[in-house]
Amino acid sequence: MVSAAGKAARAQETREAILDAAERLFAEHGVGEVSNRQISEAAGQANHFAVGYHFGTKADLVRAIVRRYTADLEERRLRLLAEIGDSGDLRDWISCLVRPATDHLDALGVPSRRAQCMAQINTVPAMRQIVIEESAATPSMRASLVGMLRLLPDVPAAVRRERADMSRLLLVHALAERERALNEGGPAAPTTWAATATGLIDALVGLWTAAVSDEWTT
Amino acid sequence: MVSAAGKAARAQETREAILDAAERLFAEHGVGEVSNRQISEAAGQANHFAVGYHFGTKADLVRAIVRRYTADLEERRLRLLAEIGDSGDLRDWISCLVRPATDHLDALGVPSRRAQCMAQINTVPAMRQIVIEESAATPSMRASLVGMLRLLPDVPAAVRRERADMSRLLLVHALAERERALNEGGPAAPTTWAATATGLIDALVGLWTAAVSDEWTT
Repeated sequence: MVSAAGKAARAQETREAILDAAERLFAEHGVGEVSNRQISEAAGQANHFAVGYHFGTKADLVRAIVRRYTADLEERRLRLLAEIGDSGDLRDWISCLVRPATDHLDALGVPSRRAQCMAQINTVPAMRQIVIEESAATPSMRASLVGMLRLLPDVPAAVRRERADMSRLLLVHALAERERALNEGGPAAPTTWAATATGLIDALVGLWTAAVSDEWTT
Repeated sequence: MVSAAGKAARAQETREAILDAAERLFAEHGVGEVSNRQISEAAGQANHFAVGYHFGTKADLVRAIVRRYTADLEERRLRLLAEIGDSGDLRDWISCLVRPATDHLDALGVPSRRAQCMAQINTVPAMRQIVIEESAATPSMRASLVGMLRLLPDVPAAVRRERADMSRLLLVHALAERERALNEGGPAAPTTWAATATGLIDALVGLWTAAVSDEWTT
């Protein structure tokens, strides 16, 4: 007889196996190209409805993938926020947007499909909405954005939205491209995730503090 | 009897139909998920080997798609370069990287799949290499990059490479995301391709002139 605790542990293992299989298949083929049945099979489940049973729809599965990632980013970002206090240095606030992700990927090791899966999810508008709900709306992200924008009072609202989109696109795709290069064993310059973070933070400080052309301010 | 000129015109029409179908299918499903046979069918070709007959391998087809796009960008960029001469304003040189693409997409109209197809091509390393060969190596791109880097003597070589990658990722994915939003009829802020270009140029001027942290210079 299997205990209730044993059953729960086994269900949790199955869920993790499904999330890993989905992450890999989505990263390789795109979210729209993979069926729940294919994911169940790749996760070694005899029951082809395992994804539906454990998660629900594909959107529910994507939400679970995103949550597994953002739960860890949230912890890391809250620690960084505690460190910087009410810093007046824009770089500190932008670090809170970048380093949780690069530190997470560093800890994950090689090979990984997480950043590539997130990039694929981001290219499907309905799925991107899930990422925005699950990541942009967390307490640590709100605090980071508020802290950052407080130091950028002269950037008009429309330009803020535009630069927030650019920052998201740059981060999502730069992390995915580096993760893929590491998986393939090719040269991945810069050589560490920490150096990648530094380069991205420098660039984003420049992007956010860039002069705004007249077209926007008039 | 069909004249030789008539045959050549018909072959050209077929090639264009195949390029259009491939662009749409690649944009929607990803380059790796679509077979040459599916493209032939979508292009209305009774012969399922039409792609192979007219183009060769999938890499050859991708090269033809990229060339159709970059040939137009090249003309536009050469005109811009002639206008700016030996400008000492970084903004002018960065405009030569951005505006040919936004002007091209503006001329193309809605709906279009071109920018989304280019984004998909860019996510496959072997295919991205084709884009780099066909676009980064053109006379106008070399001239633009040389002109830009001449104004950035203090950026170390490793950081130049890194920021060139970031600029490529930001442009490719920002244009694709806006094209998709326009196709779907949703709100696409900023409201014109010209305003999109202005926002991207401002941001890239900031990105390229950003201070470089010690980690890179030591």
